[in-house]
Amino acid sequence: MTKKEAINAEPCPVARSVDLIGDRWSLLIVRDAFDGMRRFTDFQRNLGVARNILADRLRRLVEAGILLAQPTAKGGAYQEYVLTERGQRLFPVVVALRQWGELELFAPGEAHSDLVEKKTSQPLRRMAPVGEDGNLLAPGETEVRKLPL
Amino acid sequence: MTKKEAINAEPCPVARSVDLIGDRWSLLIVRDAFDGMRRFTDFQRNLGVARNILADRLRRLVEAGILLAQPTAKGGAYQEYVLTERGQRLFPVVVALRQWGELELFAPGEAHSDLVEKKTSQPLRRMAPVGEDGNLLAPGETEVRKLPL
Repeated sequence: MTKKEAINAEPCPVARSVDLIGDRWSLLIVRDAFDGMRRFTDFQRNLGVARNILADRLRRLVEAGILLAQPTAKGGAYQEYVLTERGQRLFPVVVALRQWGELELFAPGEAHSDLVEKKTSQPLRRMAPVGEDGNLLAPGETEVRKLPL
Repeated sequence: MTKKEAINAEPCPVARSVDLIGDRWSLLIVRDAFDGMRRFTDFQRNLGVARNILADRLRRLVEAGILLAQPTAKGGAYQEYVLTERGQRLFPVVVALRQWGELELFAPGEAHSDLVEKKTSQPLRRMAPVGEDGNLLAPGETEVRKLPL
């Protein structure tokens, strides 16, 4: 079985997601795209990533249908990269990573960037998994129902 | 500036999170730990990962305070790896990855494993970012407030 077949046959949605975006640069490119970044040179400058690695990750994200490469509004030879609808739906993933980082990886009082609602300038609520009746669920109150073999 | 210093100085919580867990194997190890997996040999068998890579990722996750290495209940030379409280708080990240995968990476009707509430056997609600008054927020309704330079 080739690697590609193994991935496509993977019955776990976490594994399929991680296969496409479980990579430091891919996740940071998606974060920057949510911030409105579009140009190769802007990603490169902001991330401090080597050109060949950035080009590879952008190509993979386009192939995965997460980014769309399109000519710039000005025309010319340059392309810009924008999130597709599929890419936009990664918003909860980026927000979950942000909220865990805010909670766990900053000292009390240490400054960090904030994601806020434009209309109110207030930070978002902390996202948390809930059951179908809206009750908060701890990990131990859930289980993975695997496919029958 | 060394890589370590650059990371610690990083004011973006997404970047700090991604630095610790933005890696295919680390994310899959954390997923398996939520499923109750504890032993090196079980992770190895389930993930099909090389022993040296698995050992490296487990060590990093322990250093990051996400997993705790402890003697097995039976005693003996073996260790087992369990999620710390910090690790447990990654639950929304894993659920967000799962829900995106379910929505985007399976064909209609294609079977996948399900995360369900034990008590009801029902799948969880889809997580979504909301503002402080509980209203659903699209990415464009939010913005990152960066730190002043």
